[in-house]
Amino acid sequence: MVIGAFSASAQAQSNVTIYGLVDAGLVKESGGVAGSVTKVTSGIGGQSRLGFRGVEDLGNGLSAVFALESGIKVDDGALDNSTSTLFNRQAYVGLKSKELGSFTLGRQYTMLYNAMSQVADPFGAGYAGSIKNLFATAGANTRVSNAMVYASPVVNGFSGELLYALGEQAGDSTAGRQIGFGLNYAQGPLNARLVYNNRNQDTAAVGTTPAKKQDEAKNTLLAVNYDFTVVKAFFAYATDKGLNSSPIPVANAFGYKTAPKPSTDARDILIGVSVPAGPGNVLASYTSKDDKTVNNQDATQWALGYIYPLSKRTSTYVAYAKIKNKNGAGYTVGNNNEAGTGDKAFNVGIRHSF
Amino acid sequence: MVIGAFSASAQAQSNVTIYGLVDAGLVKESGGVAGSVTKVTSGIGGQSRLGFRGVEDLGNGLSAVFALESGIKVDDGALDNSTSTLFNRQAYVGLKSKELGSFTLGRQYTMLYNAMSQVADPFGAGYAGSIKNLFATAGANTRVSNAMVYASPVVNGFSGELLYALGEQAGDSTAGRQIGFGLNYAQGPLNARLVYNNRNQDTAAVGTTPAKKQDEAKNTLLAVNYDFTVVKAFFAYATDKGLNSSPIPVANAFGYKTAPKPSTDARDILIGVSVPAGPGNVLASYTSKDDKTVNNQDATQWALGYIYPLSKRTSTYVAYAKIKNKNGAGYTVGNNNEAGTGDKAFNVGIRHSF
Amino acid sequence: MVIGAFSASAQAQSNVTIYGLVDAGLVKESGGVAGSVTKVTSGIGGQSRLGFRGVEDLGNGLSAVFALESGIKVDDGALDNSTSTLFNRQAYVGLKSKELGSFTLGRQYTMLYNAMSQVADPFGAGYAGSIKNLFATAGANTRVSNAMVYASPVVNGFSGELLYALGEQAGDSTAGRQIGFGLNYAQGPLNARLVYNNRNQDTAAVGTTPAKKQDEAKNTLLAVNYDFTVVKAFFAYATDKGLNSSPIPVANAFGYKTAPKPSTDARDILIGVSVPAGPGNVLASYTSKDDKTVNNQDATQWALGYIYPLSKRTSTYVAYAKIKNKNGAGYTVGNNNEAGTGDKAFNVGIRHSF
Repeated sequence: MVIGAFSASAQAQSNVTIYGLVDAGLVKESGGVAGSVTKVTSGIGGQSRLGFRGVEDLGNGLSAVFALESGIKVDDGALDNSTSTLFNRQAYVGLKSKELGSFTLGRQYTMLYNAMSQVADPFGAGYAGSIKNLFATAGANTRVSNAMVYASPVVNGFSGELLYALGEQAGDSTAGRQIGFGLNYAQGPLNARLVYNNRNQDTAAVGTTPAKKQDEAKNTLLAVNYDFTVVKAFFAYATDKGLNSSPIPVANAFGYKTAPKPSTDARDILIGVSVPAGPGNVLASYTSKDDKTVNNQDATQWALGYIYPLSKRTSTYVAYAKIKNKNGAGYTVGNNNEAGTGDKAFNVGIRHSF
Repeated sequence: MVIGAFSASAQAQSNVTIYGLVDAGLVKESGGVAGSVTKVTSGIGGQSRLGFRGVEDLGNGLSAVFALESGIKVDDGALDNSTSTLFNRQAYVGLKSKELGSFTLGRQYTMLYNAMSQVADPFGAGYAGSIKNLFATAGANTRVSNAMVYASPVVNGFSGELLYALGEQAGDSTAGRQIGFGLNYAQGPLNARLVYNNRNQDTAAVGTTPAKKQDEAKNTLLAVNYDFTVVKAFFAYATDKGLNSSPIPVANAFGYKTAPKPSTDARDILIGVSVPAGPGNVLASYTSKDDKTVNNQDATQWALGYIYPLSKRTSTYVAYAKIKNKNGAGYTVGNNNEAGTGDKAFNVGIRHSF
Repeated sequence: MVIGAFSASAQAQSNVTIYGLVDAGLVKESGGVAGSVTKVTSGIGGQSRLGFRGVEDLGNGLSAVFALESGIKVDDGALDNSTSTLFNRQAYVGLKSKELGSFTLGRQYTMLYNAMSQVADPFGAGYAGSIKNLFATAGANTRVSNAMVYASPVVNGFSGELLYALGEQAGDSTAGRQIGFGLNYAQGPLNARLVYNNRNQDTAAVGTTPAKKQDEAKNTLLAVNYDFTVVKAFFAYATDKGLNSSPIPVANAFGYKTAPKPSTDARDILIGVSVPAGPGNVLASYTSKDDKTVNNQDATQWALGYIYPLSKRTSTYVAYAKIKNKNGAGYTVGNNNEAGTGDKAFNVGIRHSF
């Protein structure tokens, strides 16, 4: 009878799982025009988050799935996005079939960002070494609302994903729409993804403001890593074309005469390693942005870090990175959560998942 | 010992239950002046939500109850209200006695809305067939803050409810106050409610802005349904009087020369059915608004839908509705969550409760 | 096998505990210039809240800890702070060692507020008797973001705490920083704390707005209570110096010719008792603010309350307080959640923790 009571209770709770990550530490940034700054920062290695998710078995290999995930700042308790969107990280509901794959509706990750954070970057798009600022992965290149995503089942290590996000503008079905797809291979030591993201940047007419026809943003990324056991090697190559294909650096943060603009035509390369050392892992990467526009505003970044695990769920870390801007480029060393303000940054912190 | 560990854990969790609903699909609206639009929409059948609730047994048939419930949009992750109120759907605490009934304080549903969604409308105030736009149930007619609600116990199928919400305006205790009550009967196949809602719309003086004396909004609704097993029949009759007694349609959405205004004196009728068919239910309704003002801006709506259950907690659905406006009325086909932008709408989607 | 299923489920849940408090009641305030007002108020005795916290045992007496805590209003469902910060009450992550103490990073309580609410005030900084308005405990004197807190282990009843919060202003490491410390003794019937809080109020240059050099706010508090069993006696003495060292009362709420300003040099005293009576406790306090500036705007407050427990987690309460302002002082009777609008207030309500 007592066990029966628990069964009811456990059953009541089992429809939803609460999960999350709290990551905080100290960040020292220098080389910015405003001077050095030391901050308590949330989400250095990965954005702090709180989420609710569930899976319901519907029988015959079919299940209903959902997730609602907030990005939060553990340094000041605020929601971690400029629009105070509660579940800014993820919000979706859908069906998943073992044989046919899954179809989900809502606010979801792009294939572009997943490939970058899960395969391309030894720093997982976090810490001082994050490649987010040099590879064009910010804003809608990371997540997109009103998206329909189909993910195929995995067959012999291969799988594929398709994303289509509606622009929802009356009278113009393509304005603001976003398309993405990914071809993935993961088997044994090899993990590889080829992904594409295409975002229409037209804005429809609103009242007396006329419609604005703009370029599309087109991003392609090849991400590969291979686990040689003594070292895991990482390689990534990307092309970024069109408006806003790079994150806009903090305006004039370096006091350049000409404000740096994000490149509208660039090629990005990353070479990185993760090396087991002692109880943890040494991470290192070299990232390079080759601006193909007439401005030729290239940049390169070196990064080094160490992750020290205290348990499967908790770790401490240190990381350092330095960026070199050319011809007035204004890229900064950031982390998973902030674009940063300087060309050098040091991190030390703790992350705990639950 | 292992079981002991669960008992502690289950006990720690048992004070609060997490629950919710994620509902999303595609909505195609047409007939609006801006042209057709196709959207990923959240809350088509019922607003997507995440809630926390608890009941504590205090002995002698008395218990303490609370609920905190957010309305959310699973299409973009945002809170689903214009003021970003975290627990905009419900927030209350109170006491519940088996013999004496319950008394709760906080942000709560009106009897008017509950009767409409729970008894009057076969679409449950959701999907394209929602009667929300034609019956006057929006804003404070749905939920009201600073409310005290008494709900009687059920005796021979009869029960009653009283709501009084304070206006909280210094020096004028009636400005902004709201009153509601309901007489309910539910026994066997018959479910009937007679409800009344009266909202004072005065605003007190603020600084140099003088107090404004306005009409009251008065809404009366008789809602009845009867389950004949082969078909469940629905009937509703309402009178709406006073300012804002109808939801304001999207201004000029249809490009009428005179912007349509919500009727300040109207009678509304709904006739509907829910018919078990195959694994699911066919829903249909005819809703009519009779504007008694000199504008005589009447409207009628036809709606048809099918709910296909995948489990007790998950279903898929399709629905279609068409509205006919007369004399420049500007009512739109909406759903549970949106007022809509056109006079025709088609829905297809999935809803999952947890 | 069924038990195994629960074990997985219980384990999945055990990483995070949901907790909270819902407190709501009626507040009648009078003596304000705008006239009397009766309100449904949330957080009269203690701010209503919803929190998520966890502890992970890392072995060797070390654990990882985190908390994310929202302040909410159960009367209207809104977040209970002007900036809509989701986890405005607490947000931190850190490590705790049985031998070495704990170190936490994030948004945290000041030692000043904890001593006042946990030791100094028989009303626990809540109800009409709250000493928050007369003792200088509002805003950053209560909680501070970007804070590092070290708390020592308890040795023979003694413990200590240190807080350092970064101002995070580029080029000026002291602008906006906050320092706090506390010396605590708790053994047998005696509970005593000596705490200090020092907040730098400089603001750095932003664009063309030059840096502003301002005083520091310095607050010292000695808080003592002693449990004589038949009565628990409370005593507190505080000095408040510098800008904004007192909460700013509602501007001109009493219509004084000269708007009352918070004292920049004051001494505060509280004498209080908590007396077991019947099933509950009678609370009473006398609070006095001695303004040492030339304005000499002193104030005194009398308060009386009764807490009636329905269970360990649920209670009902009544409280009344009256304040006397001198020389144009504008202090109001508040409660834990509101500063109040009058010089008299009556509370009746219910609080339920989960």
